[in-house]
Amino acid sequence: MNQVEPLTEEIGKLINWLASFGSTKNGGVTRLLYSAPWLEAQTAIKKKMEERGLSARFDDVGNVFGRLEGTEERDRVILAGSHIDTVVDGGKYDGAFGVLAAIIAVSRLKQHYGAPKKTIETVSLCEEEGSRFHLAFWGSGSITGRYQLSDARKVTDTEHLTLEDAMHQAGFGTGVFPPAKREDIACFLETHIEQGQILEDEKLAWAAVSHIVGMKRMTIQLTGASNHAGTTPMNSRRDALYAASQMISSVIGDGKSQNNGLVATVGQISVQPNVGNVVPGTCTFSLDIRHHEYDVLNAFYSKQLEKFRLIAQRGQIDLNIETWLDDPPVKMDPMMTQRHLKLAREAGIPSKKMVSGAGHDSQIFGVYCPTAMMFVPSHNGVSHSPKEFTRTEDLEIGVQMLMKILYQLAY
Amino acid sequence: MNQVEPLTEEIGKLINWLASFGSTKNGGVTRLLYSAPWLEAQTAIKKKMEERGLSARFDDVGNVFGRLEGTEERDRVILAGSHIDTVVDGGKYDGAFGVLAAIIAVSRLKQHYGAPKKTIETVSLCEEEGSRFHLAFWGSGSITGRYQLSDARKVTDTEHLTLEDAMHQAGFGTGVFPPAKREDIACFLETHIEQGQILEDEKLAWAAVSHIVGMKRMTIQLTGASNHAGTTPMNSRRDALYAASQMISSVIGDGKSQNNGLVATVGQISVQPNVGNVVPGTCTFSLDIRHHEYDVLNAFYSKQLEKFRLIAQRGQIDLNIETWLDDPPVKMDPMMTQRHLKLAREAGIPSKKMVSGAGHDSQIFGVYCPTAMMFVPSHNGVSHSPKEFTRTEDLEIGVQMLMKILYQLAY
Repeated sequence: MNQVEPLTEEIGKLINWLASFGSTKNGGVTRLLYSAPWLEAQTAIKKKMEERGLSARFDDVGNVFGRLEGTEERDRVILAGSHIDTVVDGGKYDGAFGVLAAIIAVSRLKQHYGAPKKTIETVSLCEEEGSRFHLAFWGSGSITGRYQLSDARKVTDTEHLTLEDAMHQAGFGTGVFPPAKREDIACFLETHIEQGQILEDEKLAWAAVSHIVGMKRMTIQLTGASNHAGTTPMNSRRDALYAASQMISSVIGDGKSQNNGLVATVGQISVQPNVGNVVPGTCTFSLDIRHHEYDVLNAFYSKQLEKFRLIAQRGQIDLNIETWLDDPPVKMDPMMTQRHLKLAREAGIPSKKMVSGAGHDSQIFGVYCPTAMMFVPSHNGVSHSPKEFTRTEDLEIGVQMLMKILYQLAY
Repeated sequence: MNQVEPLTEEIGKLINWLASFGSTKNGGVTRLLYSAPWLEAQTAIKKKMEERGLSARFDDVGNVFGRLEGTEERDRVILAGSHIDTVVDGGKYDGAFGVLAAIIAVSRLKQHYGAPKKTIETVSLCEEEGSRFHLAFWGSGSITGRYQLSDARKVTDTEHLTLEDAMHQAGFGTGVFPPAKREDIACFLETHIEQGQILEDEKLAWAAVSHIVGMKRMTIQLTGASNHAGTTPMNSRRDALYAASQMISSVIGDGKSQNNGLVATVGQISVQPNVGNVVPGTCTFSLDIRHHEYDVLNAFYSKQLEKFRLIAQRGQIDLNIETWLDDPPVKMDPMMTQRHLKLAREAGIPSKKMVSGAGHDSQIFGVYCPTAMMFVPSHNGVSHSPKEFTRTEDLEIGVQMLMKILYQLAY
């Protein structure tokens, strides 16, 4: 490759350029779907694609595509990219890197090798995080048919604006642009930061993702009775927090001892009345469990719920469990995963196959077309934070691997 | 006794009369120290004492005394009463009943038997709850020398007003009234609602309190590390809530299995960042443990702290324990307790000797002079709530017992 600008420099510059749209005082980025910084960023991405010689366009929900027409296959598209939106005060890399990696990789391939045999499109998906509306994967979900435009009427943001109204205000959803739904996606490729620290801990530079975990999330409500801390004998109490603490000890302890990659997290807890000298009458806590095999996940879930019921019964506690999310695991394309790992080995890049514990657009594409997902390391595993960081050398490997993969697929 | 008005009627009327000062929209009472409703109530109590033929006066901190001069002993005073202040939206009975019981008992004794041999004073103590200022027992503490006037400079309310300024604004603390400190208290008698449901559960009408429990209260802070719920393997976590849940299970479980009257309560808990898909990096919880034997309390405390340290160590959690309250148990006068139980037995009143799990002015007097505390039942054990309730028949027994005791002591 005879680029004037070294790849690391180009990546570093573009990461900071994109992070300037919606930058926060903490050094983070806030680009919520259809907000002004989001629209500026997505418009700038379209322009960047055009500058790089790609034929760029919006679709009706605000996804941006940059097309490099193939010489032989034009009715099927190799799609590469990630999402442009962020959480509130998120990092510079989550989503953004995958969008930029695809643009850099495709434009460098074009510059070096000219037109590919097969058509490639880079994509900046409009939404993945579910940060503004309680509906995630709006971009990939609209492309793959998981969502219809009418779903935009069902959810509102904290200002009570519907997703549909927000979309209209940003200039989308009105038929000006082609519909989002696609039938011509041959495969999807997503490069992303790991958001964990397995690669860093194992001193690896790159991973091919084999599965995106299945996930169950629930809210557990315990109702006992509030009582005076001094005047209520221990055996007369219906202590909601005591029962909750037994449940949390049990589920996290059992999660640890599984030792099979299952993760269980209780991240939220609250008690009422939350006064030091009053026995808590109610306690509510969250539970998030994930595994890449649905059977393992379901078995763990059932076992824990049974334990919860016994603990509640013993403590004379009314138990209410609302399982509000139940997503099965999604397998990435095994053939692609194998081939990509081989490419990494041949290039001498220290790499591994791993499971993604976080959700990604690839799980939406993964049930719709052959999908491959690639990770680069996250420093200290920090993500969804202004402290999110990946070394430019590691980002470079991510782009180089994407170039190798796209070359193998399209040229 | 040849009263025109039946005793139950008189008690019911006076309870509702006193509850009208500082009544809340929820049917409760808020009378914070030195507030307008407090001053109105305390002034009305003084007037009520005068109407009943008692010689009434304020002291310099706002305690109100109603004196019935003895024919033989005037330099020693039998003091009977409780406190006038309440928690925010508290009940009609806590404190108030003890004040009214003393006024009714003494005025009825006077009406029936004339002047006693020994001098009796009824007292409406200015403050016990510590609701406005983080300093409890201001009334009894000022009488017994636990507090000096200068202590009023050290604490402020939520409006940043010092206790001293609030006291001055209400017209106290300026030397207009005699100093609060007394050297002439022969004994103290306090009638109070149980604030628990032991009497009700055991179908008893009255109790003589043997001890007021010792109490240790602490704040436990755990610091681990916040991590992504999906991408952080279980064995890489430093989960502050998991450690807390093990500690809470342990301390409450051990408290139950002691089966010796010890009570342990975790009433408050919070985690950071308190997000469902993030491993909690920090957790803070309260612990309140009480027992009537200081050795038992201390042994339990030490054992639990050792367990906490082991749990923290195992979870790689930094542990910080701040024990901000450590009050030893206070024994009520055993001779008086025995005599009072005998009086109840003779009167055919179903009664028992019991420990008070809550703090009371009697614990301040108990280390200063012979002190006797008496309980009447609390319906459902509810207290510090508008739902606080004791049947008038039960209140009547409390007043009758106080009359018997005062008669025995003073006539």
